[in-house]
Amino acid sequence: MAGRTANPGQSVTSRVLAILDTFDISHTHQSLSDIARRAGLPLATAYRLVGELVAWRGLARRDDGHYEIGVRLWEVGLVGPLHLRLREVALPFLQTLYEATRENVHLAIRDGNEVLYVEKLAGHRSVPIISRNGGRLPLHATGVGKALLAHETPEFRRDYLSRPLKRPTPYTVVEPGRLVADLEHTVKRGYAVTTEEMTLGTCSVAAPILDRTGRPVAAVGAVVHSVRVDPGKLAPLIRLAAEGIAARLDANAHDAAEIDTGRTT
Amino acid sequence: MAGRTANPGQSVTSRVLAILDTFDISHTHQSLSDIARRAGLPLATAYRLVGELVAWRGLARRDDGHYEIGVRLWEVGLVGPLHLRLREVALPFLQTLYEATRENVHLAIRDGNEVLYVEKLAGHRSVPIISRNGGRLPLHATGVGKALLAHETPEFRRDYLSRPLKRPTPYTVVEPGRLVADLEHTVKRGYAVTTEEMTLGTCSVAAPILDRTGRPVAAVGAVVHSVRVDPGKLAPLIRLAAEGIAARLDANAHDAAEIDTGRTT
Repeated sequence: MAGRTANPGQSVTSRVLAILDTFDISHTHQSLSDIARRAGLPLATAYRLVGELVAWRGLARRDDGHYEIGVRLWEVGLVGPLHLRLREVALPFLQTLYEATRENVHLAIRDGNEVLYVEKLAGHRSVPIISRNGGRLPLHATGVGKALLAHETPEFRRDYLSRPLKRPTPYTVVEPGRLVADLEHTVKRGYAVTTEEMTLGTCSVAAPILDRTGRPVAAVGAVVHSVRVDPGKLAPLIRLAAEGIAARLDANAHDAAEIDTGRTT
Repeated sequence: MAGRTANPGQSVTSRVLAILDTFDISHTHQSLSDIARRAGLPLATAYRLVGELVAWRGLARRDDGHYEIGVRLWEVGLVGPLHLRLREVALPFLQTLYEATRENVHLAIRDGNEVLYVEKLAGHRSVPIISRNGGRLPLHATGVGKALLAHETPEFRRDYLSRPLKRPTPYTVVEPGRLVADLEHTVKRGYAVTTEEMTLGTCSVAAPILDRTGRPVAAVGAVVHSVRVDPGKLAPLIRLAAEGIAARLDANAHDAAEIDTGRTT
């Protein structure tokens, strides 16, 4: 194909991005040959591009010769809206929620068919769980995911339910009929509950953060020991946190619109 | 110059990175022409490269046509060591510290001649301040910065003090003699204090997180209303948090070394 020679720029960019794509939670540091192999690049090409990324500090070389994500990539990611517009606004509410519960507190969005964790607060007393900032889990098996899915459009829900759904535990609700009833119940009572659906021994309670039009922009939840905590007692705290964050986001959007249009009222 | 044609890969990579470099806290969303101008690229080149970054979801196009940092850049940054090895380990200690004080709680490292904030916890009661995750401030004007600087090598300190130092407020200590005495005091008592040196009305208390060799790997601090809180009373809490994080990091490094060498004891 002439494509590569005709458009070398596109090709080089995609190679750089393929190198970044080799890093994930299961591959936090890698040798150069592993990077080259996983990115599908010749070793010499990987060597040159990795060198440029290291010079920019997007990657860093460790003492053992492996490469890991560098300061610049971490830093530039934090000037995006997930951190600045969502996490920073939600943090004080999440802190109050953490203080009241001392449990794992989550802030998450829907990304495609997954829940993406934007913030996780946890203390020494919190039950150890697998979620982490930047981590992804199935929508239907998590509290925050159910809270989001319950408020999606009927089209999205129908499409989601028509796929084969993962079953992380024997208690994960995957039968479409039961799941639909669960989501309708979630909308009606204002919060979602999961009981050992993602991990045995833990349950979760979550509420959606809705914008003015009722669209779910994010969700707040807590994950607790299933024997230690009554989910129903957590729900009011979580709903209040979600409603507070929604109100603050709405106020900020209003402020931003005024700035953009030059209005002063 | 023949350089660009002879080595198109290097050139394209540096252009992609120059585009990312145009995003910072003062430029969280930009038009394509602003990106091109600030990256020093022809509009057509910027258009093509931005398009590739959007396709990868490293950038995202907003409804108003501006571009902002996308989910993938945020996500890949979080599999780096600043987040996984430092922030995640420190978080439970930071939470306890937050709960005990309800003040701004910071986790920071030294990066070059600046302090780089890795985590900031804050609640509704915390005094509003300018630090933020991924933000940078001068070492000598901040509590966490002083805690780090005080434990740097004599060579580093000498070099740092020989430069012209920024003075964010009239109270910032910049005279080398006074600053050296302040740093020596910091080492002796085990924590650093700043009083209105970064922002009027706030003071800070911070302690270093030292590795086994005494090298400062990070620092923990709190920023408080200068009239509301006695820094001396905060110091024991902050020192205990720093020492706890140091112990946990040390234990984890030991575990990692065992895994790498295949030792099982």
